Amino acid sequence: MGLYVQKFGGTSVANVKRIRNVAARVARTFDQGNDVVVVLSAMAGVTDGLIELANSASAAPDRREMDVLLATGEQTTVALLAMMLRDMNYPATSLLGFQAEILTNDQACNARIISIGADRIRALLEKRHIVVVAGFQGCDQNGNITTLGRGGSDTSAVAIAAAIQADSCEIYTDVDGIYTTDPNICDRARKIKRISYDEMLELSSLGAKVLQIRSVEFAKKYNVPVHVRSSFSEEEGTMVVQEDMDMERLVVSGVTCNKNEARITLKRVPDQPGVAAKIFTPIADANIQVDMIIQNFRSGGETDVTFTVPRANFNQALEISKKTADAIGAAEVTTAEHIAKVSVVGVGMKNHSGVAARMFGALAAENINIRLISTSEIRISCVVEEKYAELAVRVLHSAFNLDQESA
Amino acid sequence: MGLYVQKFGGTSVANVKRIRNVAARVARTFDQGNDVVVVLSAMAGVTDGLIELANSASAAPDRREMDVLLATGEQTTVALLAMMLRDMNYPATSLLGFQAEILTNDQACNARIISIGADRIRALLEKRHIVVVAGFQGCDQNGNITTLGRGGSDTSAVAIAAAIQADSCEIYTDVDGIYTTDPNICDRARKIKRISYDEMLELSSLGAKVLQIRSVEFAKKYNVPVHVRSSFSEEEGTMVVQEDMDMERLVVSGVTCNKNEARITLKRVPDQPGVAAKIFTPIADANIQVDMIIQNFRSGGETDVTFTVPRANFNQALEISKKTADAIGAAEVTTAEHIAKVSVVGVGMKNHSGVAARMFGALAAENINIRLISTSEIRISCVVEEKYAELAVRVLHSAFNLDQESA
Repeated sequence: MGLYVQKFGGTSVANVKRIRNVAARVARTFDQGNDVVVVLSAMAGVTDGLIELANSASAAPDRREMDVLLATGEQTTVALLAMMLRDMNYPATSLLGFQAEILTNDQACNARIISIGADRIRALLEKRHIVVVAGFQGCDQNGNITTLGRGGSDTSAVAIAAAIQADSCEIYTDVDGIYTTDPNICDRARKIKRISYDEMLELSSLGAKVLQIRSVEFAKKYNVPVHVRSSFSEEEGTMVVQEDMDMERLVVSGVTCNKNEARITLKRVPDQPGVAAKIFTPIADANIQVDMIIQNFRSGGETDVTFTVPRANFNQALEISKKTADAIGAAEVTTAEHIAKVSVVGVGMKNHSGVAARMFGALAAENINIRLISTSEIRISCVVEEKYAELAVRVLHSAFNLDQESA
Repeated sequence: MGLYVQKFGGTSVANVKRIRNVAARVARTFDQGNDVVVVLSAMAGVTDGLIELANSASAAPDRREMDVLLATGEQTTVALLAMMLRDMNYPATSLLGFQAEILTNDQACNARIISIGADRIRALLEKRHIVVVAGFQGCDQNGNITTLGRGGSDTSAVAIAAAIQADSCEIYTDVDGIYTTDPNICDRARKIKRISYDEMLELSSLGAKVLQIRSVEFAKKYNVPVHVRSSFSEEEGTMVVQEDMDMERLVVSGVTCNKNEARITLKRVPDQPGVAAKIFTPIADANIQVDMIIQNFRSGGETDVTFTVPRANFNQALEISKKTADAIGAAEVTTAEHIAKVSVVGVGMKNHSGVAARMFGALAAENINIRLISTSEIRISCVVEEKYAELAVRVLHSAFNLDQESA
C-alpha cells in the first residue's frame, strides 16, 4: 500500500480516448490498495491554441489575464478525468490550483511555488478519494490565478508529492525513460534504470524533453523519488533519486549533445580588472543567457575571451560584443555558429581520475578537434564542429562503456 | 457619473471581433466618468460544446465536475476582454466566480446565489479599475465551483448590481428590448420603454429569450433597475423597473403566446378530498412541471380535472395520468397536443374591470374558441387551438390598443 502521485502530460491526455486510458491506469493503481493523486497537463496543443487566441485578442497580452486564460486547459482535463472515474464508480474529485492551495509568488506566467497547503488533498485521500489536481497552475496570496511556465505540471506533481510525502512521483510521458544518450543519434543508447538528481540536472539536454528541469531541482531539494515512465506501456522507466554509493561505480551515466549554441570570441582584450564585467554586463542587460565562458591568457597583458550564447540570440550578442570590443580596445571579434557542445555526465567522475583524459583521447582518435572545454564536478563538456557532433556522441558512448547492457 | 453593471451574452462575445466591440463599448462608458463592472457569458456555442465533450467522456457526467468544466467558458471570455482593455490602456481586472466571492448553495449545475461578498469588486472600482466578472459561475462554501444553470449570467449580473448598489444593470443582447408581443407574429409589435418586474415575469414567454426569469425575480427582490438593450446599437432598450403609478394607466402591456404545452384532462373524477393530490403527486415526482390546472364541476359528485404540461413531458405525463385515472376511478383521459396559450399581461388590469370581457369578446369576434382560462392578478391566459395562435395574438394586440405608438 503506497501513496503515489501520477502525472500525465499533454500527449497522454490528448483526447477523450487517451484520458480513458489514464483513468484505467489510475484505477488499477487505486485497486491495488494505493492512494493516488493524479496531476494533469492540458490536452496536447491546447495551451498553444490558447496563446494563439490571446495573441489574436491583444498585441501584448496582459500576463495576469494570460494566466486566467491558460488555466482553463488543465481545468478541462481534470474535470473530464474525474467524470470518467466517477462513471467507473471510483470516488474521484478534481481540484484546481487554488483549491489544492498551491500558493505561488505573483510572477504571472512564470510563477514559483511557495508552499502547498495539502490539507484538502489529505482530507480527500483519507476518505479514499482519487484526487485529480490541475497541474501548471496555482494562485498567489491575493487569490490571483498564476501559471508555472512551460512544463510546469512536472513541478506541480513533484511539489505535491513532496507536500504529502508520497512514496514516489510518477511522470508518465511519451518516452519510456531517460537514455544514456539520444537514441536518434546512437542506436546503442540504453535506458537508465537509476540516476541521481544532479546527473539528471546535467543531462538537461536529454531530459528537458522528458522532465522539466525545475521539477528536478524541486525533487532534489525535498528528496522526492521521481519515476519517469511511458503512459503507453507497463514497463518500468527511469528512477531519478538521491545519489547512492552504487552510482559512483559508474564513471559516466550519459552523453549529451547540444547544438543550440554559437561561439563569440573577443581577441586580444587588454587584461585589466573589470574587463569581464564590461563584456558581460551589456549581454546580461539584453537578457541573453551566456553558457560557457573561457579566458585564454596570452603574453603581453592581453587575453582572449570566448563564450557561447543561444543561437537565437547570436546576432544580438554579436552586435553588443562588437561595440564592447571597440570600447575596451580588443583587437577583433571572431565567431562560430556551427558548433556543438558534447558532454559526459556522471556522479562517478568525482572519484575517478582520468575521465577528461579518456574523453579527449577518444575524440582525438577520431580526429575531432576540441575548440572549447568546460567542466563541472560531474560533467565535462567539449565544443566541437557541428558536423562531428553525432560521431563524437557515439565515440564517447563507447569509450565510457555505455554501449554494454551491464555498464 | 454612475455605477453600471454591463452584461454581455454569448452572441455578443461570440468571437474576438465581437469581444473587441464589447471592449469599445465598455471603454466608452468608462470614459464618460462612470464606474463599470462587466459580466460576461461564454462565447456562443462554447457551453454546448463543453456539454458535448462531457457526454463523450461520461455516460452520466458527475455534476460537480461538469461545473468545473463549464466554468472554463466564462473564464476564457473574461480573460480575453480584460486583455483587450489592458491593451487599450484601460485598467481592467478579471474576476472568476470564486474571486468575486459569489457564494452559492452546493446544488451543482443549478446553484442558487446566497450572497456576494463585493469587497474585492468595490476595492477594484475604488482604484478606478474596470472589473470583468465571469457570469454563470460561483462557488459553494466548501470552495467547489458551481454554475447557475442556463442563462445564469443574467442572474450573476443582477446579483452583482444589487450587491454593489449599481445605478442600473444593463443586459446587452441580440435584440433591442422587450416588445409588446413577438414581432415575428405581429408586425405592429412595439418596443416597451418601461415595464414592471411583475409584468416582465408574466411576459416570460417573450422575455425568456432575452432575460432569464430568475434574474428578474432577483431584480425585483433587490429593486435593481434592469436595462435590456442591444449590443449592436446605441439605442435605448427596455427598462425593467419597480411598478409606478404611470404604468397603471396602461391596461395591458404585452401579449404572449406559448406553444410549448399540451393538455391532459381526466374526465369524471370522483369528487373526493385528496383526489387532486393523487393526480399531481406522481407527476411532480417525475419532475414534470405542471402549468395550468383547471377543475370543472359536474353534477353527481364528479369533476373534470384539466392541466397542461410541457410538450417534452407530454407522453410521460399521459402514461402517469392513465394509471392514476384507473386507480381513482376516472372515466377517461382526453388530451390535446396542438394547443397554444395566449396571454395578456399588465399591472393596469388590477385597477380596470372588464379586461377579461374585452379579451373574450375580441377572440369571439374572430370565432376563436377558448378551451381553458386561467388568471393571475396581472395576467389572463386563454388556451386556444394552435392554428389560431398567431391570429389571437394580433387580435388582442389591437384590442388593447398596443398597435398605437402612444399606447
